[in-house]
Amino acid sequence: MEVLVTGAAGFLGRQLIRELLKLGTLTNRAGQAQRIERITAFDVAALDGIDDPRVRAMTGDIADPGQIERLIGPGIDSVFHLAAIVSGQAEQDFDLGLRINFDATRALLERLRALGANSRFVMTSSVAVFGGALPATVDDAQVWAPQSSYGTEKAMADLLLADYSRRGFVDGRSLRMPTIVVRPGKPNRAASSFASGIIREPVSGAQAICPVSPDTRLWLMSPACAIQNIVHGHELPARQLTGGRVINMPGLSVSVQEMVDALRRVAGDEAAGRVVFERDAAIDAIVSSWPGNLSAVYARALGFAADGDFDSVIRHFIEDQRLAAS
Amino acid sequence: MEVLVTGAAGFLGRQLIRELLKLGTLTNRAGQAQRIERITAFDVAALDGIDDPRVRAMTGDIADPGQIERLIGPGIDSVFHLAAIVSGQAEQDFDLGLRINFDATRALLERLRALGANSRFVMTSSVAVFGGALPATVDDAQVWAPQSSYGTEKAMADLLLADYSRRGFVDGRSLRMPTIVVRPGKPNRAASSFASGIIREPVSGAQAICPVSPDTRLWLMSPACAIQNIVHGHELPARQLTGGRVINMPGLSVSVQEMVDALRRVAGDEAAGRVVFERDAAIDAIVSSWPGNLSAVYARALGFAADGDFDSVIRHFIEDQRLAAS
Repeated sequence: MEVLVTGAAGFLGRQLIRELLKLGTLTNRAGQAQRIERITAFDVAALDGIDDPRVRAMTGDIADPGQIERLIGPGIDSVFHLAAIVSGQAEQDFDLGLRINFDATRALLERLRALGANSRFVMTSSVAVFGGALPATVDDAQVWAPQSSYGTEKAMADLLLADYSRRGFVDGRSLRMPTIVVRPGKPNRAASSFASGIIREPVSGAQAICPVSPDTRLWLMSPACAIQNIVHGHELPARQLTGGRVINMPGLSVSVQEMVDALRRVAGDEAAGRVVFERDAAIDAIVSSWPGNLSAVYARALGFAADGDFDSVIRHFIEDQRLAAS
Repeated sequence: MEVLVTGAAGFLGRQLIRELLKLGTLTNRAGQAQRIERITAFDVAALDGIDDPRVRAMTGDIADPGQIERLIGPGIDSVFHLAAIVSGQAEQDFDLGLRINFDATRALLERLRALGANSRFVMTSSVAVFGGALPATVDDAQVWAPQSSYGTEKAMADLLLADYSRRGFVDGRSLRMPTIVVRPGKPNRAASSFASGIIREPVSGAQAICPVSPDTRLWLMSPACAIQNIVHGHELPARQLTGGRVINMPGLSVSVQEMVDALRRVAGDEAAGRVVFERDAAIDAIVSSWPGNLSAVYARALGFAADGDFDSVIRHFIEDQRLAAS
């Protein structure tokens, strides 16, 4: 079977491709387990560090319908659509965010509709669709009231994916992801970038600036758990999706203070002391509008997973860094 | 001041233009009451029955950005965007619905953004954004889960309007309208068309087919109340819109059986006997997914109005018909 991964050169994209290569099979659009023959790995940036004959890396503009036509042929079984402009950047560049986070998603859905194959289409959405007056725990019936252009674009894409699925154009699944922590590498332009930074930098001996208050509550998921859930979201039979195609993922609810406390337990006082609080009003406004806890009843019933505790998330990050360096 | 009305040749559009001409003034984009100098009345169809030097009627394609540029110049103060493909037709012609209900709205918002005037932009949205498992009374925090392409497109337009407003590109207000009853004239391709038909036709001596069950509960508003609310939605100062730019309108919750009972009280047994129940699965599926009752707490606090009782709605319709015929 043929699979497309967009945003393939990003951290999650590369992890997902490695996982798919390891699995070797997925459920195809006919509902049968089938060997993965080809993964088209698409991104605006070049793909590094993956060398496998099944992977065809391509670069280009995901919002260009001509490009999408070249990317997706009639043999496509599945699309994992991870490409996105992150929240901070989408807030700074409105046109770019709308073009990539909404128009590109629409163009992908439209291409799959034209091919008429009812392909599986797994997309990562975000808790940034929520905002305004929120209860302490947000349940699946909570209205979407995004306070950022990123959240707006993701919510619009969610609605479109649901309608394309309802009409039988695609077999879509949109996973509302928590903030993914701990991301390795460098900071990015997501408003939530600090949430990885305040663990990643101190662990490697560097100082990290936290732009939000210690009592800010975040909804988190580890990279390994995210990959597991993305694959699970693909594998679920459509008949189980009785509560709709847009699924609020489970997660781990921790305050920034609890994250620093966990860092202290796992990596010591010196590491925890490297987190410096310097409020950034723009980042704080976006992050504070997100929910810190979701019931995710529907997702849990569908078998999506959450991390057990944040200490383990840090320990796994340190272990992964050690393996990557060795 | 200059005003644009889209969907101007439709029933609500014509009523709104008549009301604006009668009022003579509106609050302009600077927040000052100002005389209406010009109403551009735009529609795909020709505008009949309005002859006033302040009204400039234009026909064309509302989804054509070139057309929109000609329609909207830098002097624009306010846009009333009523143009839409109704629910039944949007379900039958997916591309047309998406193009008019979403792309055209986006193009209008984009034109106003380019002009940089922070114009007031009042749009009619719909309770069709709701669906799935709904409580008996839907409150303002209820998630949107449209079960039709029309509802999907309106929800996407709502999100975009809210973000354009948050960013200060426009001063937008989206009014989530109930089903408007009783519409005069001919049936249209809205799934809810029957809700007017089962009053309008029997009153004029004709039979009407009701495609849904008598216990189906509808959320209704009379045309006069709708016009009053659309003008009120325009006049509200932006600072009052603390609960967001997308406002679930108040309404009247009545079952189809209660509508027929009211018809019997107002127009007699013979009229009520002209309503024939013949279930249409496609229409029933769409209409049954809509909420039959909303708390509309936010809208009521903002001073939006609802009809008192359905008997009066029928009486006003009969009176209006008599006046129109005389």
